[in-house]
Order: sequence, then C-alpha cells, then structure tokens
Amino acid sequence: MDKNTICAISTPPGQGGVAIIRISGCDAFAITDKIFTPFKGKISFAEQNPYSIRLGKIYNGDEILDEVLVSVFRAPHSFTGEDTIEITCHGSLYIQQEILKLLLKNGCRLASPGEFTQRAFLNGKMDLSQAEAVADLIASDSASSHRLAMSQMRGNFSNELQMLRSQLLDFVSLIELELDFNEEDVEFADRSQLQELSDNIERLIKKLADSFSVGNAVKNGIPVVIIGETNAGKSTLLNFLLQEEKAIVSDIHGTTRDVIEDTINIGGIIFRFIDTAGIRDTQDEIETLGIERTFQKIKQASVVIWMIDTTQVSEKIEKLAEQIIPLTENKQLIIAFNKIDKISPEEQSILDQLFDDGNAKRIYISAKHKTNLEQLEKLLLEASHIPEIGQNDVIVTNIRHYEALIKAHDAILRVIDGLRSNLSGEFLSQDIRECMHYLGEITGEISTDEVLGNIFRKFCIGK
Amino acid sequence: MDKNTICAISTPPGQGGVAIIRISGCDAFAITDKIFTPFKGKISFAEQNPYSIRLGKIYNGDEILDEVLVSVFRAPHSFTGEDTIEITCHGSLYIQQEILKLLLKNGCRLASPGEFTQRAFLNGKMDLSQAEAVADLIASDSASSHRLAMSQMRGNFSNELQMLRSQLLDFVSLIELELDFNEEDVEFADRSQLQELSDNIERLIKKLADSFSVGNAVKNGIPVVIIGETNAGKSTLLNFLLQEEKAIVSDIHGTTRDVIEDTINIGGIIFRFIDTAGIRDTQDEIETLGIERTFQKIKQASVVIWMIDTTQVSEKIEKLAEQIIPLTENKQLIIAFNKIDKISPEEQSILDQLFDDGNAKRIYISAKHKTNLEQLEKLLLEASHIPEIGQNDVIVTNIRHYEALIKAHDAILRVIDGLRSNLSGEFLSQDIRECMHYLGEITGEISTDEVLGNIFRKFCIGK
Repeated sequence: MDKNTICAISTPPGQGGVAIIRISGCDAFAITDKIFTPFKGKISFAEQNPYSIRLGKIYNGDEILDEVLVSVFRAPHSFTGEDTIEITCHGSLYIQQEILKLLLKNGCRLASPGEFTQRAFLNGKMDLSQAEAVADLIASDSASSHRLAMSQMRGNFSNELQMLRSQLLDFVSLIELELDFNEEDVEFADRSQLQELSDNIERLIKKLADSFSVGNAVKNGIPVVIIGETNAGKSTLLNFLLQEEKAIVSDIHGTTRDVIEDTINIGGIIFRFIDTAGIRDTQDEIETLGIERTFQKIKQASVVIWMIDTTQVSEKIEKLAEQIIPLTENKQLIIAFNKIDKISPEEQSILDQLFDDGNAKRIYISAKHKTNLEQLEKLLLEASHIPEIGQNDVIVTNIRHYEALIKAHDAILRVIDGLRSNLSGEFLSQDIRECMHYLGEITGEISTDEVLGNIFRKFCIGK
Repeated sequence: MDKNTICAISTPPGQGGVAIIRISGCDAFAITDKIFTPFKGKISFAEQNPYSIRLGKIYNGDEILDEVLVSVFRAPHSFTGEDTIEITCHGSLYIQQEILKLLLKNGCRLASPGEFTQRAFLNGKMDLSQAEAVADLIASDSASSHRLAMSQMRGNFSNELQMLRSQLLDFVSLIELELDFNEEDVEFADRSQLQELSDNIERLIKKLADSFSVGNAVKNGIPVVIIGETNAGKSTLLNFLLQEEKAIVSDIHGTTRDVIEDTINIGGIIFRFIDTAGIRDTQDEIETLGIERTFQKIKQASVVIWMIDTTQVSEKIEKLAEQIIPLTENKQLIIAFNKIDKISPEEQSILDQLFDDGNAKRIYISAKHKTNLEQLEKLLLEASHIPEIGQNDVIVTNIRHYEALIKAHDAILRVIDGLRSNLSGEFLSQDIRECMHYLGEITGEISTDEVLGNIFRKFCIGK
C-alpha cells in the first residue's frame, strides 16, 4: 500500500464561506506543523489530543495565508484509519489552492479520486461495498436513494453476504472433507440437507439480484417520457413539474439548476425526464425521422405520459394510438387529456370512450391552469412501482454488485443441478467456491488493483 | 440584537466529499443535542470541552440521516462570539438539506447572508472594515487581492483609522474646552500646531483615498481591451492567455470555467478582458456602429492591446491610428504586431517606423506560434502600474470606504480653511466632528441598520 501522505479539498468545488482541506497519512502531523502556527501554545500535532481543534495561522514563508481551524484525528480512530488533519480555511478559491500548493511543497501528494475512502477500505475500516456506499451517499438526491446508501454503508448488505458466504463455507468444508477420504467413499454431507441449503442460498441470491431493478430506479431515477403532438402542452407540464422542485432547492442552495434540470423528486422518488420533440402529422421525411426518434425514446422509459390536446382530437388520434399503445407494453402509460377547461362535458364524455383498453391510466388536466396536476403527480408515483423501502432493507443499487450476484447465482444453480445429478464432490466444491468468490468480490475480500481502480476512479476528489 | 439561533451551510454550494453546517446562538448546544447521538458517552454539548470534536449520528425521528463530526465552540471564543456548533456531514445535497430542515424544525432560523460575520461585528469580535474584509478574503482570486483583504481583516486599516480618529479627538477636545470657557476668550489649542496636525491628517486621508484606484484594480481586475481588425489574431491571443490560466485552475478544482472565463491572473495581478468585435473597413452603417462600440470600450479600459496583422499593413493602418491613438491618452497602449513569422526583416524595419510616438509599447509576436507571448505578458504586467503590495500596506479596496474617506477629506479641508481664516472654535469643532464621523462609519463605530443591511446583504449565506 502506498504510504504517501495525501491531501485534497474535501468540500464542494467553488467559493463559499469555508472549505475543508483533508490530509491523511503518517506525515500528516509533521507536514501540518511546518505550515501552521497556533495562536496559543506551540506543541506539535503529534502531542495534541485527538478529536480536538486548534485555531491559528497558515504561513507561506513570511506571509499569512489564512487564519484557520485545524482538527486532529489520530490513527486508527479516523475515517481513513491513518493520522488525519482537517484544515478549515476561508472558502476563497485562491486560499484553497494556495494551502493545497503549500501542502504539496511540504511533502503531501494530491489525493486521487476516492483515495481517502480507498485507504479506509485497505485499512480495514469498511468493506468494499460499504466504501462504494460512501460515493452513493454523497450522490444521493432523494429520501430513497439516501436510505439505500445509508443502509449499505452501515453494513446491512455486507452482513447478508457474510451470512451467505459462511453458509457456503460450512457446505464446502463438508464436501472437501469427503474428498480427503475419497478412497473410502464416505459421505459426510447429507445430500438432501445440502439440496435444501443450496435452494435457500439460491433464493436469497436471486432476491438480492432482483432487487437491483428497484435499486437502480431509486439511484438513477425512473425514466419518464412525455410524448404528444406539438402544442399538446408538454413543455407547460414539464415546466410546472421542474419549477416546483427548483424552487424548493434554490431556497436553500442558491443555484443547483444545472444538476436538477431534468429530474424531479416527487414524494421522495426521483423521476428522470427524457426530452422529446412534439409529434407532428406530416409527410416530410425529416419530420418522420423525428417521430421515429420519439418512439425510440419510449423504449428507454418506464413511464410514458401521453399528452392529448382535447381541443384538437380527430381520427388522427386513433391512428397515433395504434402506433403508441403497442410500444407501451410492459410500461406504465398515463394518458393526460389536456386543456380540459376548453371543452364541454359532452365532449369529455366522448373522450372517455377513446382507446379505453384498461391498461392505461387516464387523467383530465389543464397544464396551463394547473388543474389536476397534483393528481397527475400521484399517478406518476403509483406508476413508479417502487415499494416502500425501510432503513434496514437490503437492495442492490450497484451494477458491479448486480453482475457479481448474477455470476454467483449461475454458480449456485450449477451446484443445485450437480446435487440432483449426483455430481462428484470435486466438481460441486469447485462451483461452490466460485459462488463464494463472486460474493467475495462484492465485499472486497477478493479484489484486484484494477477492480479497486475502477471503483474509486468514479469518486470525487477529497473523499 | 436578534437572539435567535441561526444555521446555514457554510461550505460552497453543491455536492462534495463533505460539507459544514454552522449553528450559532444561545440554543446552538441544546438544538444539536436534540438531533445528535454520539457514538460514545451521552453528555450534552453544554458540558463538552470547547474546541473538541465528537463523532456520532444525526437522527431524523427513527431514521439515521448521517454519520457526522460535530465541533464545539463556546462563547465568547468562537467566530461569532456566541456558542457555535459546526456539523461536518457527507457532502450530498440531500443530506445537507435534510440536516438544515431538521435544525429549522428544532428551533433554528436560517441565517441571512453574512449574518455570522454580522454577529461577530455586533459582538465586538471585529470592526466593520474587518468584517467587510472577510467577504473580500473569500472572493479573493489573486495574491494581491488576497493580501489586501488579509491586511484589512487583520486590522491594519482599522489601526490607521483609529490613529487618525484619536488625533482628531485630541484636537477637538482642546477646541471644545475653549468653548466651555468662551466668555473668557482663551485659546488652549495652539493654532499653528493645529494647522500642522490637520495638514498631516489631510495628507493621510488623501493617501488612503488615492490608494483606492490601486485597490480597486487589485480587487476587480485591470480592464484590458484587445482591439484590431478582423483576423488580426485577437481570439488566438485571448485563447492563449485564458487557456493557460484555466489549465492551472482546473488541475485542482474541476470546473471553475465560468468564473474565470474572461479574467486572467498574470504574476498575481488580475486582468479583466473586455470583449470587442473586430474592426472592419466598411461603408456598411451597421458595421460602423460596431466600430463605434469598440471605440467606446477603449474608454472603459486601462490597458489597450492593439493587434495589427503585419501581413495586411496598408495606409488604412495610419488612418486607424489617427482614430485610436487619441483615445488611448491616459491609458497604456500596447501595439502588438502579429504574424511576425510571415514577414521579412525588411518589412519589419518598415513597421518599426509606423506611428512611433514614444508613448505606446511595441512588440512583435506570433499568436499562432506563441512567439514572444511571454514578453507580451510582461508588458501587460508593467502596464498594470500596480505597485508591489506588502502584507502590511493599507490600501482601500472598498467603494464604501472610499466614499467615506472622500467625505472625511472634504471635512478636514474645511477645517484647514477654517484655521487659516480664524473660524470660530464652534464651527471648527463641527467640521472635525464630521471628519471623525465619516472615519467612524468605516470601522462601524457609527453605523445604522440600513448600512449594516447593505453591507452584509452582499455576503454569501453561511459566512
């Protein structure tokens, strides 16, 4: 393991009231001693009580760079498990950079993305799935994604995997014991018990792997597409949905506009809106391509909102329905009849008859006058199909974990087949070991530099 | 003074490794006790040692919101002078918001911009000019602006003003003593000594006010305009200058592209580039307007870089020079002969003769091949006319201070006139008091809620 002392800005990039620069490694105290002069006393950080704070100045040569607070954490009682210093400085970009430069000059190396968390993993402070949950926790943008990341960080997933692995270990030990005595043709492992155990394990692994569809929707948002003819009111609706959320966020944060441009949080569930152009009735070849693209985008969505301008309903709509409805099989279709304020009750009762195949949810709205839009949000929530998630539920959110579970599942299925067909213990043991291997990849008991590199590269610097 | 306990996110807005939420006020400890459960022990923050850190969990009801570090500062030994808590949480937007909401629910109020610093001022932890320097320090983006803000924050400016005010106080006390005895027609204050003293004070105030032009250039950047005909190479040069800086910044910070889009830091001095369209030789009315606008922009600049395409020199250049050179009076003009790689030494020696009026600096470059561009940067630095600034130099950077100094200067000039014309002590004293009043406005010895409101409104929230 790399023993260099690393440093990075750990707070969000940019200018603010204050910023934190984190330093971790065996020289963290000595390097900070070189650049920091406390207001009171002059003991080195190595002598200072852990979990305490000192006020003082950072000097660059003769010149005062900043007045800062320095927090001290001593190995192994720190996030990384190493000696750690956190400098809280004024949040000027210039000051943040200059302190960083000063640390580099005095022997630190700039941390690579996720390197603090990687060290926490390598020092045994957490397993790999917990380390990955740190990144998920930071990226969490809704109650559900936060809850899943927190559950994983606190080790609920790791415990479940640990349990599976220890059951498999008992299992494989018995079989391998038989192999030692194989000339004597003994059978320590009761095959019917093994059958039951492996069925159980298979079910558990499958349950975890299946939870990924929910986990993925929670983590990345549920893809929603709003389709409809031009002027059906798609933009008005989208603006209503987006603006509401923006207002809440900007109250507290200033401008995070870019981040939430096309996702909204309704009732704790994130919806990700896929942009489409309006469908236009046309013979034009280029326009037809545009419609094709809209239909393509339906495929990426879990929920389709089809907006219909009720003042413009003609037989075209029936033709469009013939194209759209088959595409929404296995998806949630919400038909939103817009501009409901402009039509009579008689006209509405005609609309009630339109392509009522029972699978689509139907709602009458006015996007402009904000009529029934809350009900539309409720329909969206229902369509999301995300079950209530408790804080101890184990749900897979990470594609790496999902892929490892699928491989583990394949292996355990081979074990089950093998037991049925009286496969020799040697081959059974190989499949069980393979299943354990893939489960171990998730927690990091089995890992390579390449796997670690891929995982931590996606972190932000400073974490 | 408002006694509410306030809270805000103090780190830059957005997502990062960690974020700090600051809480200040008499209920800071009690409110944090309600939402925080330490990993070890269960003493309240009121009993905890100041300048110490505890690790624990923030609960929202039954649910764990985050694992956090909590730092404790006890009044008066904190930034604001009040009991203060700093929660270091994971830097997810969701977590930051939820902790903030939880604090609001438990009795905190969201801090208004600069309110922590305003409280530091109101609690006597710093004077007003020092409080303003906190905002300048955070906004500082170069060695010079940082040094000026740091000098002001450390009280160098305040000390200078304090000295002036105490001299004026001695002065006015003597005069007012005379007024008490005015029926006896005594003269305690030696008028020639007073004359000398007020001349001194006038010089000091003038020196401070004059320093504003330097201070303003340091703080806001020196305005530079690059002019020239279309295709003279303006964009190539600007891209070279900007990219160099961007590369340095982005190494450390990711994307601050927007912020530095059109300012560059050369040798610690900030230059602010004013964009212009190319000058085109045309009869077209609209184009002529464009040229007019370019000439207008020259007026806003301190430094003008005129780029000439040496491969396209004709008599037009002389005509252009007749228009441009008069506009650059009192400015620094740099004539950059571009595409020098494309012309012969003979052609260059002809260019040497062109409008050599001695005031302009001349340089031969190739923007495309980066020839002589470092020398051009040196010329820019020389043209900036910013003297070397020491860390104890007092330079005025704030327009509010400048305006107060101008008013104080007017008052002291009236005092000097009054002394010359043997004005009665009553009127002299009034002018001296006025001078003191304006100096006191700078340090905040004299302030109104409106003035404070204007000052702190410009701060970021969380500082």
